[in-house]
Formats: sequence, structure tokens, C-alpha cells
Amino acid sequence: MASERPGWRAGLYRLLDPRARKQPGLSWLNRLIVVLIVLAATLAVIDTETAISNAHRAFFATADLVFALLFLLEYVARLWVAKENPHYAGKRWPALRYALSPAAIIDLLAILPTLLAWAGGGFVVLRLVRVMRLVRLAKLGRFSRAWLYISEAVWSRRTELQLTLAFGLSAMLLSATALYWAEGQVQPDKFGSIPRALWWSVVTLTTVGYGDVYPETVVGKFVAAVVAIIAIGLIALPTGILAAAFSEAVQRHKDDER
Amino acid sequence: MASERPGWRAGLYRLLDPRARKQPGLSWLNRLIVVLIVLAATLAVIDTETAISNAHRAFFATADLVFALLFLLEYVARLWVAKENPHYAGKRWPALRYALSPAAIIDLLAILPTLLAWAGGGFVVLRLVRVMRLVRLAKLGRFSRAWLYISEAVWSRRTELQLTLAFGLSAMLLSATALYWAEGQVQPDKFGSIPRALWWSVVTLTTVGYGDVYPETVVGKFVAAVVAIIAIGLIALPTGILAAAFSEAVQRHKDDER
Amino acid sequence: MASERPGWRAGLYRLLDPRARKQPGLSWLNRLIVVLIVLAATLAVIDTETAISNAHRAFFATADLVFALLFLLEYVARLWVAKENPHYAGKRWPALRYALSPAAIIDLLAILPTLLAWAGGGFVVLRLVRVMRLVRLAKLGRFSRAWLYISEAVWSRRTELQLTLAFGLSAMLLSATALYWAEGQVQPDKFGSIPRALWWSVVTLTTVGYGDVYPETVVGKFVAAVVAIIAIGLIALPTGILAAAFSEAVQRHKDDER
Amino acid sequence: MASERPGWRAGLYRLLDPRARKQPGLSWLNRLIVVLIVLAATLAVIDTETAISNAHRAFFATADLVFALLFLLEYVARLWVAKENPHYAGKRWPALRYALSPAAIIDLLAILPTLLAWAGGGFVVLRLVRVMRLVRLAKLGRFSRAWLYISEAVWSRRTELQLTLAFGLSAMLLSATALYWAEGQVQPDKFGSIPRALWWSVVTLTTVGYGDVYPETVVGKFVAAVVAIIAIGLIALPTGILAAAFSEAVQRHKDDER
Repeated sequence: MASERPGWRAGLYRLLDPRARKQPGLSWLNRLIVVLIVLAATLAVIDTETAISNAHRAFFATADLVFALLFLLEYVARLWVAKENPHYAGKRWPALRYALSPAAIIDLLAILPTLLAWAGGGFVVLRLVRVMRLVRLAKLGRFSRAWLYISEAVWSRRTELQLTLAFGLSAMLLSATALYWAEGQVQPDKFGSIPRALWWSVVTLTTVGYGDVYPETVVGKFVAAVVAIIAIGLIALPTGILAAAFSEAVQRHKDDER
Repeated sequence: MASERPGWRAGLYRLLDPRARKQPGLSWLNRLIVVLIVLAATLAVIDTETAISNAHRAFFATADLVFALLFLLEYVARLWVAKENPHYAGKRWPALRYALSPAAIIDLLAILPTLLAWAGGGFVVLRLVRVMRLVRLAKLGRFSRAWLYISEAVWSRRTELQLTLAFGLSAMLLSATALYWAEGQVQPDKFGSIPRALWWSVVTLTTVGYGDVYPETVVGKFVAAVVAIIAIGLIALPTGILAAAFSEAVQRHKDDER
Repeated sequence: MASERPGWRAGLYRLLDPRARKQPGLSWLNRLIVVLIVLAATLAVIDTETAISNAHRAFFATADLVFALLFLLEYVARLWVAKENPHYAGKRWPALRYALSPAAIIDLLAILPTLLAWAGGGFVVLRLVRVMRLVRLAKLGRFSRAWLYISEAVWSRRTELQLTLAFGLSAMLLSATALYWAEGQVQPDKFGSIPRALWWSVVTLTTVGYGDVYPETVVGKFVAAVVAIIAIGLIALPTGILAAAFSEAVQRHKDDER
Repeated sequence: MASERPGWRAGLYRLLDPRARKQPGLSWLNRLIVVLIVLAATLAVIDTETAISNAHRAFFATADLVFALLFLLEYVARLWVAKENPHYAGKRWPALRYALSPAAIIDLLAILPTLLAWAGGGFVVLRLVRVMRLVRLAKLGRFSRAWLYISEAVWSRRTELQLTLAFGLSAMLLSATALYWAEGQVQPDKFGSIPRALWWSVVTLTTVGYGDVYPETVVGKFVAAVVAIIAIGLIALPTGILAAAFSEAVQRHKDDER
């Protein structure tokens, strides 16, 4: 079979795996796959708007099947070329090893629902399927260096991020306790318990401030003001640290490439 | 005609193009044009408030025409001096080449609507005309170094900005999906599809939080809280990176000038 | 008694005090105590939600007592090993000295309420007890380096933080005065005095923006817009400074450890 | 008179002007004045809350007079010691020159209203007086280095701040225009003119988001989402730049002091 022709397989592997190319950037096949994933995700998003999708049922159903078949083709191709991957060199069952890698499982999860729904899936599973197809977006990450940079940034500052996250969450909990104490009696449905007051905490300390919950008494407003001024600063710490680390990680890689 | 007198034309060119001057800063003519553009834009903005503009119809109409004529004069002057521009030196049709440059097209777009409206434009085009005149503001950019710095900052960090924007938009989409799953059944008009839930995503993750949409169930609030804490950090990444890059770009130019 | 056997006491001291260990990290006993504190705090938080706690009264009461007894055991153990603490070496009454340290007082406060409530505490004190038990969370700080880093960061930039806080609070007060002047007559219940307008100030300048108070007149909106654009920048200054200082403090300690 | 005794005057001058002291920090007299100003400002703020001030009319009136007399005493003392100020050395009329300096005018403005109100001021001027007394707070600035640092930070980055402010305001104006175009017909009272849409712009791009104005149509929401994601980043630029510059200014002074 095709597996007898290593030339073809090696060529396809170079087209599929960006790390196997000599030039930087993506091959035409990878570019095509990126476009397909973005198109499939966009369609999956619009599909949830029943006002649109019900009016064009046939189109959405066909497009869904076409994308599923294309991604199935890509999945099979990736299984076939796994033998060329230097990562599995000299190991047995390269295709199986690849199939059990997280990236391959995401790929499979993105195809299966549509195929199952066509093979006889009922109405109940439909809703879940729609959302799951968005997992296809995660494949975009495999093509870009973004995941590498972000994970490097997070790893290099893991101490700071852990500490500031712990501080932020403690600040959130203590703010909720303060408001539970100050407003719990006046607005029992909104501040009547610490878990309820936590919703106020999150909405306020992230500065979203929907306006569905806010203190009404003078004491509550005073406590909320003091808490907000102190805690908002703590909540913003991780973002500042992450931004600096991310910028550093990208600059380091640029220097390496020179 | 005037094109026979290169002394006059060269002098006017030096008055109009800041790059042709030896001293830093703007010539008196450029300062005047900046003031005219700001005045014209302010008037265009106030003009949209019909309570004011209808009461002073004659004043606004006259001012509009005066500004259009002044900008027409400037446009013709710029066409005439294009021959002096070293950028077009030795090339044919300098005036035509200039007229096709983006800056000149913006200038023309800012004049045309008023003239067309006076030449016989009807009622329907009026609304569009008002808004289009704001394009005049973009001319301000040509006089300042701001565009240069911003574009340099964006270019020097294009990798980071692309990656963080992609992350931010993915975070937005995944948040919308999570809330569509959690609240879609309870508030179908607000979270009943992913495109609808995206409005919640944008309003929450930018921390604007109007309060027109927010989760109401316990599950929805929990999902929204987790999503908000994680995603707000991601959304803030590009801003931090852009601020650092912009500051660097300006400092670099200051060092050059010394 | 046990105090005759210094080997046991010294071993227990090494298990309890992270600074007495040679290896970095926490001993198994300290890890266990962290887990217990997190569990106890989580339970105390859920306990305030009467819908849940009333349905499982027996479980919450038992868990509360178990945690109190475990923390009592820990408290007594810490008193017993105080003699081994080099901090109190050569001083008299080491256990008493330890008992008067802030950390030990927090520990005692976290145990006492439950024991008092069981010993015969009535209904009135119950509410206060629930909230006070959250103080147990503060014990987490003793195990981590977070407090050290945060206090170092705050201390190294105390000048900047003091100044920017003073500026931020002044900006808040002046904004409130401006809105009191602009909207006081129109919305007397919301802007009728500077203390009332301060609530608007806090909610706006922290960008929370609940939507319970906002200017309604044209003058009020204009003043609020100008004030918001200027003052929000001032309010954000301390956060930026603190984030940079915190990141520096952590990096400095990492360099020391190498 | 007293002006014959230069020893006393020179001593008082050293107590009043922090720059005349050899040691860093404030003299006991300056500390007292700071406390008096903070007390007076706090009282002026509480005084606007008529529910409190009417119930304690006599107390507030007396306190007001006492503070005014104390500040009058300080004002006269500062006029008297102006002769000692090296800034006015060898110049004529040092007291008059001092009286015309901005700091002295602020001092006078903070005293005059109360004295005028007592000398026979009517009911109408009362409201203005209350707010004006807050100007006393500005005197705090003279004692601290904060104004120096902030003005240095603003000055060292004036180019960046000007450019980013211009960008931010343009982004605000263009956002308002976009929403005026998208929502003007549907919500004429909120988006019916660009000045009205500007209120939406300010509230959204500062991420305050009261919730009194927001787009309701699909087109409006789409435009608002795109505009918000782009423009919020631009609005945040000046803050980031100012925070960095302020931190630098303080560090530079610390190095100088060593």
C-alpha cells in the first residue's frame, strides 16, 4: 500500500508538520487547514443562532458534513505520516502513539460528534455537539508559537502568578465576608451568605460592575469603597506580571532566531 | 502661469510640507491648517445635534461652505507644489501621483461631500456627509509624528500583538460558548446562541459591564466568575505590550534627535 | 513529662516551623495543616448559606468541632515546641512569649469561637463566629513567602505608593466636589452632599460603574467625562508601581537562591 | 515692631518653609498645619451633608471660624517671614511679592469665604463657600514632593502623553461617530447626535459602563464591540506611560539623595 512509498509520506509529513520544514512559516497545506478550521468554527458559532440556522438547515447540514469529512481526511493523513515523526523514531506503533497524543485526541473529538449525529445521533446530543465542535479552534494553537510563548511566560513567573492569584482570591473572599457582614441583613438575597456575596466580589474587583448587586447602606458603601480601592490593585497584579513575562518570552525567541 | 515661477512654488512647498523645513516644528501655514481642521471637525460634531444646528442653520451652512472652500484652496495648492516634492523628483505627472496618494484622497473626500451637497445634493446624502467630514481629522495625523510612532510600536511587536489578540479573541469565543451552555436555556434572548452570548463576552471581558446582560443562575454565575478572572488577564495583555512598545519607540527617536 | 524528651520536641519543631528545615518547601505536617485550613475555611464559607447549612446541620456542627479540636491540638503543640525556637533562645517563658505573638493570637482567635459556642454560646454570637473563623485563612500566609514579597514590594516603593495614593484620594475628593457642584441640585439623594458624591467617585474612578449613580444633566456629564479621563489614570498609578515592585522582589529572591 | 527682631523671624521662617531646614522632613509647625488642613477639609466635606450639619449647626459654625482664624494667623505669619525667603533676597516688597504668588493666593482664597460669610455673607454665597474651602487641600501639595515628581514625570514624557491623549480623544470621537451612525435612528435621545454619543464613548472606553446607554441593535452591538476592543487599548496607553515615568522620577530622586 501507500506506506511502501516513503517519498510520498515524507513529503506529506513535511507539509503537515511545521517543525519538519526548513523555511520558517507554514506550508500551503497548513494554511489551508487553518482557513478550514476558522471557517468551521465560524459556521458552528452561527449555527447556534436558530433564527439563521433553521432558515438554512440544508446548507448548515451539508457544510457540517463536508468539514467533518475534510477533517477526517486530515486525521487519517496525520496517522499515516506519524511514522516519519522523529519524535517516534525507532519506537513501535507510531500511528497509535500519535493517536493517543493530546493534539490527536482533540482532532478526533472535533470530528466524532458530527459523524455520530449523521450516523443516527438523536436530538438530545445535538446541543452538546454544537459546542464541542468549537474544540476545533484549539487546533489553531498547534500551528502557532503562541502556546509555547504563553506557557513559557507562565512557567518563568509561576511563583509570582501563584502568589498574586492566591492574594487576589483571598482578597475576593475577605471582601465578600466584609460585605456579607455589612449588607447581609439588608439584602439577604444578594449578600445573605458568603457564597452569594462572592458574586458581588467578583463583579466588583474585576471592575466589571454589572449593577445587579451593589451595597445600599452607608456602612456597606463605605466598606465596599475601602475594599474596592485596596483589592482592585491586588487583582490587577497577575495581569501586569503576565504581560511583562510574555513580552520577555517573545523577545528572547526573536534574539534566538537572529 | 505660476508654474513658471519656481521660487514661489518652492517657498510654498516649504510652508506646506513639514519635512522640507530645516527647523523642527510646524510652519505658520501648517499651524493655521491644523486650527482650521480642528474647527471644522468641532463644527461638524456640533452640527449633528439638530437642536443646535436647526436654530442656527444659516451660520452652520455658511461655515461649512467657507471651510470647504479653504480646504479646496489647500488641496489645489498641494497639487501645484507636488513638483517640488523630492519623492516625485524625476518622475512624470507629479501632481497626478500626489493626487493618488492616500493622504490626498482623504483630503478630497473631506471636501467633496460639502461641494456636492451645495451643487444640488439632496436630503438623503446629508447624514452621510456630516459623518464623512470627520475624516478631516485624519489629516491631523500627517502633521504629527504620532502615526509614525504608533505604527513603529505596532510593527516592532507585531508577533506579540497578533498572538495576544488571537488569544484574547479565542478567550472571548470560549467564554461565550461556556455562558451559552450555562445560561442559554434560562435567558434565551440574551444567551440563546453563541453570537448573542458574544455580546456578553465583549461587555464583560473588556470590564465595561453595562448590566444589560449578566448570568442569573448559580451555575452561570460560577462559570462567568471563573471565565472573567482568567480571561480579563488575557484581554489586558495587548495593551500592556503596546504601551511598552510605544514608549520605546518615542525614546528611540528622542535619542536620535540628540 | 514530654518536655524531658528534647529529641521528640526538636523533631516536632522541625516539622512545624518551615524555617527550621534544611530542605526548601513544606514538611508533610505543614502540608496537612494547609489542607485543613483550606477545608475549614471552605466549610465556614458554605456554612453561611443557610439553605445548605440548615439542611445538613449535624454534619456542619460535627465538622466544625473536629476542625476546632485539630487546630487546638496544633495550637498546644506549637506552644510546647516554642522552647526550640532559636528566636526565643536564652529567654524565659518561651511558650508565653510565643502565645503573645500575632500569629499565635490569630490561631487562638480561630479556635475560641467554636469552643465557646459549644461550651454554651447562644444564638446571637453565632453570626459573628462564622465570619471570624475565616481568620484561619490568614494562617496560610505564615507558610508561604507571599507576605514577605508583598511587604518587601510595598516597602521598597513606599514613597511612590504613598504619593500616588494621596493623589488618587485627592482626585476622588475633587471629582466628588465637582459632581456635587454640577448635579447636587438635580439629584439631591445621590449628589446632594460631598460624602454622597464620593460613592459616585469611587464607583466611577475604579471603573466599576454599577449604574446606580451617574450624572444626568449635560453639565454633569461633561464634568464627569473630563474628571473620569484625568482621574482614572491617577487611580491606576499605584497598581502599576506595585506590580513592577512585586515582580522585582520575587526576581531578587530567585537570584539569591541560585 | 516685630520686624526689628530678625532672630525670631528667621526662626519662624525655618519652621514654616521646609526648604529652609537642614534635616529632611517637616518641622513640628508644618506637621500641625498639615493636620489642621486635613481636619478642615474633612469638616468641610461632612458639612455639605445637611442631615448632619443642620443637627450640629453651632459646632460646624464654630469649627469653621476657628479654622479660618488659625489659617489667617498662618497667612499673616507667612507674609511677615517673606523677607527671610532667599528667593526674594535683595528685592523690594518681599511680603507683597509673596502675597501674589499662586500658593499665597490659594491660601487667601481658602480663608476669605468664611470671613466674608461671617462679616455678613448671605445665603446664596454659602454653597460656593463650602466647595471653595476644599481648595485648602491643595496646600498639602506644597509640603510634599508629590507635585515635583508628578510634574517631572509628565514633563519627561510630554511627547508620549500628548500623542496618546490625542489618539485617545480621536478614538473617542470616531467611536462616537460610529455609534451615532449605527444607533442614531433607533435611540435618538442617546445616540441622536455625535455630542450625545460621546457620553457613550467616554463611559465605554474608560470601561466604567454605567449601563444608562448601550447599543441595542445587532449592527450597533457589532460596531460597539469592535470599537471597544480597539479603543480601550488606546485609552489605556497614557496611564501605562505615566506610571513608568512616575516610578522613574521617584527612583532618580532616591539615587540623588544617597
